[in-house]
Amino acid sequence: MNAFQDHYPENVAHCYGCGRLNAHGHQIKTTWDGDETVTRFRPKPYHLAVPGFAYGGLIASLIDCHSTGTAAAAMYRQEGRGLNTLPAFRFVTGSLHVDFLAPTPIDVTLELRGRVIEIKGRKVIVETKVLAGGIVTARGEVVAVQMPDSFGATPTA
Amino acid sequence: MNAFQDHYPENVAHCYGCGRLNAHGHQIKTTWDGDETVTRFRPKPYHLAVPGFAYGGLIASLIDCHSTGTAAAAMYRQEGRGLNTLPAFRFVTGSLHVDFLAPTPIDVTLELRGRVIEIKGRKVIVETKVLAGGIVTARGEVVAVQMPDSFGATPTA
Repeated sequence: MNAFQDHYPENVAHCYGCGRLNAHGHQIKTTWDGDETVTRFRPKPYHLAVPGFAYGGLIASLIDCHSTGTAAAAMYRQEGRGLNTLPAFRFVTGSLHVDFLAPTPIDVTLELRGRVIEIKGRKVIVETKVLAGGIVTARGEVVAVQMPDSFGATPTA
Repeated sequence: MNAFQDHYPENVAHCYGCGRLNAHGHQIKTTWDGDETVTRFRPKPYHLAVPGFAYGGLIASLIDCHSTGTAAAAMYRQEGRGLNTLPAFRFVTGSLHVDFLAPTPIDVTLELRGRVIEIKGRKVIVETKVLAGGIVTARGEVVAVQMPDSFGATPTA
């Protein structure tokens, strides 16, 4: 129960990328490492771009969820609150940018390292790098926006 | 055999997003509609962000593969060549940007519509919009780069 995602409220813990309650999803786990945040993820053999390399959609997905998790954790930290205190901080993605710097090998555990660039009201800008064997293969920037209270409520028919 | 992806050479037809040979993947299919390109995709029930809405990583993945496919098709069209002629055009993603404009409902068939903004040497810039029930919920821009000949070759150990 040390990862950011372990503390997401149940109604927002179904995300395919980071929800602990999504049995089909990636279920990424992110923690602090000093002022950076870290997620480690091993692609499945079928997460292919071309044989030997991970596909860009997976890289983008990991950056996205790692960054929104980082945004939430940064808000708790800024307020001096524990991740398990209420009301919960939870973020959605306003924009996602990824520069693919080199092909990302598929047969290694990838490391995502995030850092907060700016907190501005309900927005948090996060930079997240993807490393494979210590080499940065992609660099992402996410503008995360604090989730409206209505998002995550049971949708009406 | 009318979709762009049906003509990808076998060694680059394994992508999780768009490869017809990836049994686990999305296997998107893209075609021309005048000067625009169109992909239709129905999210699986587990491609959730929060209940009722599709997760951003899926949206980003669809934009990515739709756009690289569009880039390839645009190069064939520019050269007046059929999609099944050799040498094959195939693109990788240099950068991906997605603005999430509104939550994307999960229980509809999404429509991606792409258009070529610019062809510049080996680079093609593509804008792709995601529509749900006719409403644009995300807007993407991809810089697609013609794949190096070495990419997609059998990787060496």
